[in-house]
Amino acid sequence: MFYLVGLGLGDATDITVKGLDVVRRAKRVYLEAYTSILTVGKEALETFYGREVILADRDMVEQASDELMADADTEDVAFLVVGDPLGATTHTDLILRAVEKGLQYKVIHNASIMNAIGCCGLQLYSYGETVSIVFWEKDWQPESFYDKIIINREKGMHTLCLLDIKMKEQTIENLMKGRPIYEPPRFLSASQACQQLLEIVKRRNSEKMTDSDLTPDTICVAVARVGASDQKIAVATLAEMCDVDMGSPLHSLVIPGHMHPLEGEMLKLFAFSDHVRKLLETIEKR
Amino acid sequence: MFYLVGLGLGDATDITVKGLDVVRRAKRVYLEAYTSILTVGKEALETFYGREVILADRDMVEQASDELMADADTEDVAFLVVGDPLGATTHTDLILRAVEKGLQYKVIHNASIMNAIGCCGLQLYSYGETVSIVFWEKDWQPESFYDKIIINREKGMHTLCLLDIKMKEQTIENLMKGRPIYEPPRFLSASQACQQLLEIVKRRNSEKMTDSDLTPDTICVAVARVGASDQKIAVATLAEMCDVDMGSPLHSLVIPGHMHPLEGEMLKLFAFSDHVRKLLETIEKR
Repeated sequence: MFYLVGLGLGDATDITVKGLDVVRRAKRVYLEAYTSILTVGKEALETFYGREVILADRDMVEQASDELMADADTEDVAFLVVGDPLGATTHTDLILRAVEKGLQYKVIHNASIMNAIGCCGLQLYSYGETVSIVFWEKDWQPESFYDKIIINREKGMHTLCLLDIKMKEQTIENLMKGRPIYEPPRFLSASQACQQLLEIVKRRNSEKMTDSDLTPDTICVAVARVGASDQKIAVATLAEMCDVDMGSPLHSLVIPGHMHPLEGEMLKLFAFSDHVRKLLETIEKR
Repeated sequence: MFYLVGLGLGDATDITVKGLDVVRRAKRVYLEAYTSILTVGKEALETFYGREVILADRDMVEQASDELMADADTEDVAFLVVGDPLGATTHTDLILRAVEKGLQYKVIHNASIMNAIGCCGLQLYSYGETVSIVFWEKDWQPESFYDKIIINREKGMHTLCLLDIKMKEQTIENLMKGRPIYEPPRFLSASQACQQLLEIVKRRNSEKMTDSDLTPDTICVAVARVGASDQKIAVATLAEMCDVDMGSPLHSLVIPGHMHPLEGEMLKLFAFSDHVRKLLETIEKR
């Protein structure tokens, strides 16, 4: 059996009892290590599981599925994914390849940022399309995520913004010369994401604004290390959030749409400033 | 500490290791028993946890939070919720009451149908607003869920439809006479939900149809007992799904929007008929 096991979001103990049982008896245990990270490293997982864990990078998962799935017709192989195997990162391609090989597969679900974002108090029902905010480069500054946020807001929906992760990047020089030298991983922070959003707001300032457009005073929610013991949630305006330090990765951002008074009341628990607290109070009264 | 612990979706072993640890050392353990069910009963949980579990119905949770949270300032109290505590059912009101009482709280996340629905192969990113399909009564047949599905489809988004659960219902007679006699729980099945949708399609037949409207040939996805060992996924047309038996509860339904070829390929794994398989093949070729 080929098992796709979700690890949840916090630390080693966020695996389910069912998932841990699979890990402990599997012949080989892989950890998908390129779309997300736990706040604890591979070694902490190995200690907790009492098992060797093989890091699987994108090349291995996308190109070496024969190796990954070897013997999975007669033995159990576990493929661990931070969050849920079919959550923020969708490993459906891996399932399709397993089925093609005639293998049986099983998904062991766990919390994903896609549902654990409920921790900030905005109702999961009321989220529209999820967007990804990418690192802007000097000559590549896409704005499509902004447009999607606005489309959600036009319908009163909240937007979960997943923030870019750059693992195993190569400089152009190293890439050209074929040198397997990689840059340190980079994680887009909530404040960086807000700086990019604010930049878009400024660029579009001359265009006709609607109520759905963002302004420096739009309420935003940043979350960091959801599920971990040092989880942090901050509610601030877009302008304020540009300077909020959420600490180490991973961060995510939510741009609320229409808020129910109860949602406003929950957000107030995490208010970063008196200013945003007052803004939230006007929502409650509406 | 007041803990809100997600149980995940399948059986007793879908709790996380962290959650199980809380349950085993908490002074009291409550199980929220009115918005969802596990495929296993309270007794199976008690056996697995080695702890007594107190059933908490809606009245208790909404009106007796003093009792529920008693001593949570000095002791650990665990409140168990099927799925995620802030997932399909949002217990933010409970968090607000805990904070009001000056209590500390912690959420232990787990899989919810809101993310585990990824099991059918449609990308979580591409879901719009989640809708609830309610049991139609003779004189109460709302259609608002249909309109929300169409709004999602107009933007190419999928719609997760949560299906109605009736726990602790009273007949009007028993209610009037104040007799605490309750009807057996009822769970809207995927086929019943599709019958209601098809009825709406028929009623609106005379109106101007768009590509986003449902027809008897619209592809639907039904899931049952997600995460349990007898999980079932079926992909059929709306008309076909009216007769598909998904077995015991809980069921959910997905009405896809625009599908990516890879999503179509995954759905084909669960095709109920040659007819729907052929419809899916036309998507892949698009």
